[in-house]
Amino acid sequence: MILALTGGTGGAKLIQGLAAEIDPAELTIICNTADDAIFHGLYVSPDIDTIIYTLAGLLDQEKGWGLAGDSFAALEQLGRLGEEMWFKLGDKDLATHIRRTRLLSAGHKLSEVTDWMRTVLGVKSKVLPMSDDRIETRVVTAAGEISFQEYFVRERWSPEVHQVFFAGIDKSIPSPGVLTAIRNARGIIVCPSNPVTSIGPILAVPGIRRALVESKSRVVGVSPIIGSSSLSGPAHKLMKVTDLESSAAGVAQGYADFLTALVIGVEDEGLQPCIEKLGIKAVSANIRMNSLADKRRLAREVLALV
Amino acid sequence: MILALTGGTGGAKLIQGLAAEIDPAELTIICNTADDAIFHGLYVSPDIDTIIYTLAGLLDQEKGWGLAGDSFAALEQLGRLGEEMWFKLGDKDLATHIRRTRLLSAGHKLSEVTDWMRTVLGVKSKVLPMSDDRIETRVVTAAGEISFQEYFVRERWSPEVHQVFFAGIDKSIPSPGVLTAIRNARGIIVCPSNPVTSIGPILAVPGIRRALVESKSRVVGVSPIIGSSSLSGPAHKLMKVTDLESSAAGVAQGYADFLTALVIGVEDEGLQPCIEKLGIKAVSANIRMNSLADKRRLAREVLALV
Repeated sequence: MILALTGGTGGAKLIQGLAAEIDPAELTIICNTADDAIFHGLYVSPDIDTIIYTLAGLLDQEKGWGLAGDSFAALEQLGRLGEEMWFKLGDKDLATHIRRTRLLSAGHKLSEVTDWMRTVLGVKSKVLPMSDDRIETRVVTAAGEISFQEYFVRERWSPEVHQVFFAGIDKSIPSPGVLTAIRNARGIIVCPSNPVTSIGPILAVPGIRRALVESKSRVVGVSPIIGSSSLSGPAHKLMKVTDLESSAAGVAQGYADFLTALVIGVEDEGLQPCIEKLGIKAVSANIRMNSLADKRRLAREVLALV
Repeated sequence: MILALTGGTGGAKLIQGLAAEIDPAELTIICNTADDAIFHGLYVSPDIDTIIYTLAGLLDQEKGWGLAGDSFAALEQLGRLGEEMWFKLGDKDLATHIRRTRLLSAGHKLSEVTDWMRTVLGVKSKVLPMSDDRIETRVVTAAGEISFQEYFVRERWSPEVHQVFFAGIDKSIPSPGVLTAIRNARGIIVCPSNPVTSIGPILAVPGIRRALVESKSRVVGVSPIIGSSSLSGPAHKLMKVTDLESSAAGVAQGYADFLTALVIGVEDEGLQPCIEKLGIKAVSANIRMNSLADKRRLAREVLALV
C-alpha cells in the first residue's frame, strides 16, 4: 500500500497521477481537515471533497475545486436571502455537505462519513481525514484573527499574516487507521501541498509526525514551491511566517526529520547541495502538472523513489 | 386588518386573490405548521413556504409548490449519495431550508425566521406560523403510523387511514401575535384548505379555536370540497376518518362554533338549508380557482362577506 499525505488543489493533481499509475485500491490518502468550515450551517471539508471528487473523476479541473458542470442556483438564492456568498458552493456540491452534516449531527464520525462518501462515489482508494476531532487553522492578521477560508477565499490571501495556529490540535487524535497506515505503508508520499496549512496540520496531530519519523519506509515529498513562489496559493507567504525559507530548501527543512527524498523543480537544481546537507536526496523534475500526462509522469517519478 | 387561516396549495390560491384585492400590508396570515418535516437534516415548512412564495410572486403555479423555474441538481446528487428523493426540493428552494435550519439551530423561533424570510422576499403581508412549537401530523394507516408528508407525497394519499393526530399539540402555544391578530381582525377568512390536516391543526393549538369563537368579527370560510370530493388533495378522505361528512356541509359542521358564513360551490346549492340549520350563512359561488381572475373574483366575494 502506498500512502499519500495531501491538502486540496496542488496535492490533488499528484493524487490523480498516482491513482492512474497504480491500482487505486493500493493507495491510501490522509487528508488535511484543518480547512474545514461551517457555511450556512453545513459542514464543508474542502480537501476531502477535492480528493474524493478527483478520484471519482468528478472534479471541476479548470477551477481546481467543486464538481464539473455544477450550477449555483442555491447559492445565488442564499445570497438573496441575506447569506454571505463568498465561499462558492455548487448545487451538486451542496448535496455532499447536506448529507455529511446530517450524518455528523446523527453522531457519525467524519472518518465514517468520508468512507461512505468515497464508497458511494466509486472511489477505490481509502481516504482518511487526519483526525475526527474538530481542528481549525486560524490566521492572525493585522486586522485580527480569521479562519483559513476567510483568509484564503474571502480575502484572497492578501492580508499580512503574523501567525498561523491550529485551534484544537493539542487535544486531537489521529482518525482510526491513520497510524496503522503510516506503519504499514510500502512507501509514503508527501504531496505538493502547502507545508504550513495543508501538510502542517496533518503533521501537528499528536502521534502522526512521530509515526512518520519512525517509519521504515521511504518518505518522498514533492515541493509545492519553484524559486520563491508557490505553484498555487499562499504557501510561500505562510512559510515565511513560520520561519521556513520560501523555497524548495525551506520545504526540505520543514520535513527534514522524516523525509527520504524531495522532488524539486528543474529550475531549483542549484538548491540540491543545501537540501542534501539535510540528509535528504534532492531529485529535480518537471513538477508543473498541467495535463494528465504531466501528473502521471510525475507520479511515476515519485513512485520510482519510494 | 384581514386575517386568513390557511394551509398550502388550495389556500394559497385564495391568498393570492386576497393580496391582489386589498393592500397586502392589511393582510395577516396564520399558517399551518403541522406538515413541517425534516428532510436531509433540513427543516422544511411546506405551507409557510408556499404562502410566502405565492405572495412574493415566486411560486411555481403549475406545480402548486416550490419556486418557478427551479432546478433539481442538488436533489439528484443527494439521490446518488443514497438519500431518499421522494420529497422534491429544488435548488433555490433549498436555500430557504438551509437558511431556516441554520437560524433555528442558532436558537431563533420559527416565527422570527418566517418574518425575516417574508421581509427579505418583499412580502408585505404578515405571515405567522400557528405555533413556534414542533407539532407533527401523524397518519395511522393499516401498515403503521407515518408522517403527513410520507402519507401525502411518498404514498400519494393512497393508504387507508384509520386515524389522524397532531403530536405535540397539547403542550403547544400559539406563536406571538396569533391570538392578538384573531382579536383585532376586521374580518377572518378560513381558506379552502384541508379541514383535517391544514385548518385542523391550527384550530387545535390550545387557545386558537376559543379566540375564534369569541371573536366579534365575521368569520367566513370557503369550502375545499365540491360534491363529495376535494378540489385538491385528500381532504374528503380524511374528513370521513374524523367523522365529518365529506361535503361542504361537513366543512360547515367542522367549523360550526365560529363560522359566520361559508362559501360553497354552485354545484352544492342544495346543501344550503342543512348548512344554514347550523347557524351559518351559505353562499354559493364558483369556488374553482384556475386563473388569477378566478382567485380575485372569489376573494372579492369573500371580502364582501366579512
